[in-house]
Amino acid sequence: MPDLTGILETVLYVDDLARAAAFWGGPMGLPYLHEDHRMRAYDVAGRGVLLLFPRGGSLHPVPTPGGTIPPHDGAGPLHLALSISADALPAWEDHLAAHGIAVEGRTTWPRGGVSLYFRDPDGHLVELATPGLWKGY
Amino acid sequence: MPDLTGILETVLYVDDLARAAAFWGGPMGLPYLHEDHRMRAYDVAGRGVLLLFPRGGSLHPVPTPGGTIPPHDGAGPLHLALSISADALPAWEDHLAAHGIAVEGRTTWPRGGVSLYFRDPDGHLVELATPGLWKGY
Repeated sequence: MPDLTGILETVLYVDDLARAAAFWGGPMGLPYLHEDHRMRAYDVAGRGVLLLFPRGGSLHPVPTPGGTIPPHDGAGPLHLALSISADALPAWEDHLAAHGIAVEGRTTWPRGGVSLYFRDPDGHLVELATPGLWKGY
Repeated sequence: MPDLTGILETVLYVDDLARAAAFWGGPMGLPYLHEDHRMRAYDVAGRGVLLLFPRGGSLHPVPTPGGTIPPHDGAGPLHLALSISADALPAWEDHLAAHGIAVEGRTTWPRGGVSLYFRDPDGHLVELATPGLWKGY
């Protein structure tokens, strides 16, 4: 079985790229990595890339000099989780409140981890999770 | 700015959980991590978790002993990318072919990375990418 080394790109589809970028590059603090005519990319802790695509903007194959990128798209309030340290949880709670981002849920897991849930401007369910959620995480 | 330490969970919404599980736990080789009445979780290289949710199955808040998980859902052929080593690329090409998984696209990036694109059983666009795609990745 050939190896996988991780999840490289996680994707959200958004109605307004500028609005989404203001959120993910703003209160969420993700460093900007790249943008082109079809998307914007953010670095997450040097370990993965969050891609924002305008909804309906990638329904056709995209030719590039090195090959063609097949179509994709998405609707609905998707979900993703970002990991934080346990020490950072109170600071995140204060930070979200300071930016007027309502926490929609707060869950304590059997392994001791805590998750905060809130929405991005497109209604995607964003989770911040401390260690102690999944086995090994 | 409080720290983020990574993307913990990436989510796909599927029409048939057993069929999706057969793919992600089968030819994709992801180790099984957890399942319950609403979803299935797979480990990706000890660095992140792929969650499979039946479409339309998480439209209502889910109470747990530690708190309530807010609703989420998704439609459309979503996209995610998994990282592989450059050395593993030929083995992955052989492996996909051996499992009858058609490569829909192959792209070489300006930084030297190579991406293979194919579909999971729900039509999600899966990418396997070698280093040299994004800056720092």
